[in-house]
Amino acid sequence: MSGSAKRMAKIRPFYVMELLARAKQLEAEGRSIIHMEVGEPDFDSPEPVVRAGQQALADGLTHYTPAMGITPLRETIARHYQARYGVKVDPGCVIVTPGSSGALQLVMSILINPGERVMMADPSYPCNRNFVYLVGGDITAIAVDHRTDYQLTAEMVASHWTPETRAVMVATPSNPTGTLIEKAELQRIHQVVQERGGVLIVDEIYQGLIYDEPGYTALEVADDLFVINSFSKYFGMTGWRLGWMVAPKTYVGDIDKLAQNIFLSAPTPAQYAALQAFSDETLKITEERRLAFQARRDYLYPALTSLGFKIRSMPKGAFYLYADCSAFTSDSYQFAMRLLEEEGVAITPGRDFGDNHPQTHVRFAYTTAIPALEEGVRRIAQFIGR
Amino acid sequence: MSGSAKRMAKIRPFYVMELLARAKQLEAEGRSIIHMEVGEPDFDSPEPVVRAGQQALADGLTHYTPAMGITPLRETIARHYQARYGVKVDPGCVIVTPGSSGALQLVMSILINPGERVMMADPSYPCNRNFVYLVGGDITAIAVDHRTDYQLTAEMVASHWTPETRAVMVATPSNPTGTLIEKAELQRIHQVVQERGGVLIVDEIYQGLIYDEPGYTALEVADDLFVINSFSKYFGMTGWRLGWMVAPKTYVGDIDKLAQNIFLSAPTPAQYAALQAFSDETLKITEERRLAFQARRDYLYPALTSLGFKIRSMPKGAFYLYADCSAFTSDSYQFAMRLLEEEGVAITPGRDFGDNHPQTHVRFAYTTAIPALEEGVRRIAQFIGR
Repeated sequence: MSGSAKRMAKIRPFYVMELLARAKQLEAEGRSIIHMEVGEPDFDSPEPVVRAGQQALADGLTHYTPAMGITPLRETIARHYQARYGVKVDPGCVIVTPGSSGALQLVMSILINPGERVMMADPSYPCNRNFVYLVGGDITAIAVDHRTDYQLTAEMVASHWTPETRAVMVATPSNPTGTLIEKAELQRIHQVVQERGGVLIVDEIYQGLIYDEPGYTALEVADDLFVINSFSKYFGMTGWRLGWMVAPKTYVGDIDKLAQNIFLSAPTPAQYAALQAFSDETLKITEERRLAFQARRDYLYPALTSLGFKIRSMPKGAFYLYADCSAFTSDSYQFAMRLLEEEGVAITPGRDFGDNHPQTHVRFAYTTAIPALEEGVRRIAQFIGR
Repeated sequence: MSGSAKRMAKIRPFYVMELLARAKQLEAEGRSIIHMEVGEPDFDSPEPVVRAGQQALADGLTHYTPAMGITPLRETIARHYQARYGVKVDPGCVIVTPGSSGALQLVMSILINPGERVMMADPSYPCNRNFVYLVGGDITAIAVDHRTDYQLTAEMVASHWTPETRAVMVATPSNPTGTLIEKAELQRIHQVVQERGGVLIVDEIYQGLIYDEPGYTALEVADDLFVINSFSKYFGMTGWRLGWMVAPKTYVGDIDKLAQNIFLSAPTPAQYAALQAFSDETLKITEERRLAFQARRDYLYPALTSLGFKIRSMPKGAFYLYADCSAFTSDSYQFAMRLLEEEGVAITPGRDFGDNHPQTHVRFAYTTAIPALEEGVRRIAQFIGR
């Protein structure tokens, strides 16, 4: 039966999974492990959401829904944009998906012909690339650094544009760097993309987790772009597998057709649970958690910096710090593996996020309470001999 | 921003969705509609499964799981094959997926290079084709009829094989025909595929719903094939979005890598709920339901036949009857639309299942209780003037 399709060679594993498996093995052997590798809130789903999920099960709401999601949830999401950002969104353009992974797959499958390219920053979330490879497209990865807060700029987009470029994808806040794109810059990027007949995709899955400013949505900039979002991060609903996107009206028919075919629908109990995600009761909980994440960042950033890690752009969102570890190693993967083996601290090596100096970068996630972060920092200090 | 990728022209909508939307509109206007179009059990999820789901939510089991599913569920599924079919399955080869849709996407993405082909029967479940188109592959659709129970045979597979053929996909029981492949024939098909270096994919998502014989699994035939299954149909868990596949060991690494990237994981509460799917308490319920489906088939088959529909192969599984309606129309789509408008009976036109005489075929689903089926038959009789 021979081997896998050729694309599988292009699709990389998450290297951190290997490390995570080893971490779990060590834990099973009784070792204490500090987890600073996990891209998932340590908080459980908010109680009102859980209650609504239980009620949905009690009510027998376990059948298929329309492919683009139940109407009340699409309307609730649209109202959220009005309430929070003052933007009018047509509920008919809101598509509920199986995680933001589902949204990413729909958008890439609908937009990208074989041979066409999607422009992205390097470092960035690695899965985004693979959705493009799956449909025969390719990536234009643009190396970014602290001078642009690890984000693409309009100038970069313009200067790297080729006839094959079909779309530009940005993330604000970004994984792994936690940095933002300023609204004025996003406007300029949108203009460059629009002038060239391309499509702008904005990943806003960490949107609620912004610490030093009120934030905005790309939908304030324009409605001829794709916005990807998720209930996973800000709403603490990772395992429910529920996300959404807001799409330009002209693509909604094709999105519906494709979603019918490849997903049938997003998980039903999760959709009913998410109706409570924007309630005042839930938002009170998620806002408290946002402040908890902010306090962790405000502890971890100076703590790591004083150890000699260089974090060159202040992360303003998500729950990640992307640090230059060149003071300690020129092989961040071995560094992470040894840190785990010797001190029981799990972090993510740079190679999971691209090819732009991954050997000298690691990602720290502050998805653990401050006492554990303090213990982690103590162990790291010991590991590097400080 | 111009239009969608070219593949979108190849991907067809479910035409029945249009009909379903119209049916719901009529219902909203107060009309009585008999639903014989829906490919979903009318039963709710079994109570032990629902209880386990509620408990999972109460226990905070709403975080990510490993990409291939929680170990206890993979082990439970493996044990099920041993208990029910006497086949030893390595839990490491069982992959839990977001619906069988997720499994289909993984298997096609892993196997099919652009330009390669997957052989399938026509008529068959339409989404299967689209997973192949998504990755740049193509379909060899083989017209089948009652002479082979609407199934591929080893002879057909051998005679249609080309250098581009990478895989053969069969479904037993089949949607839309409800027919089975005999085990001996599946053995012959497997041998033909194996001799040519291809891969056999067996869709067993209606496996539990077989009426006249004990049934078997393709895993009795060989372990170098892919088996796709689902909690949706026999276990009545459609909206939970949970399926599984059993894969040859050599592909498991790539499946894990791809699942990590495109799904992260299957819905977590659903996975814990499904731990109860194979319990004695649940199986008692699902067996009762199987007998209810059988009674419906045994009512509907002669009722439709006596009206003049020709059902040329006795359906032995799933919950569908695929009927030749050429006595009444040469345009089954208009026939279905008029039947809905004039008599309030919803059925699925043949064009949703391929290009093999769709104009003279319709699919009836017996996912409705017998009194409603009786009323449906009465209305159909009136519609065709019997």
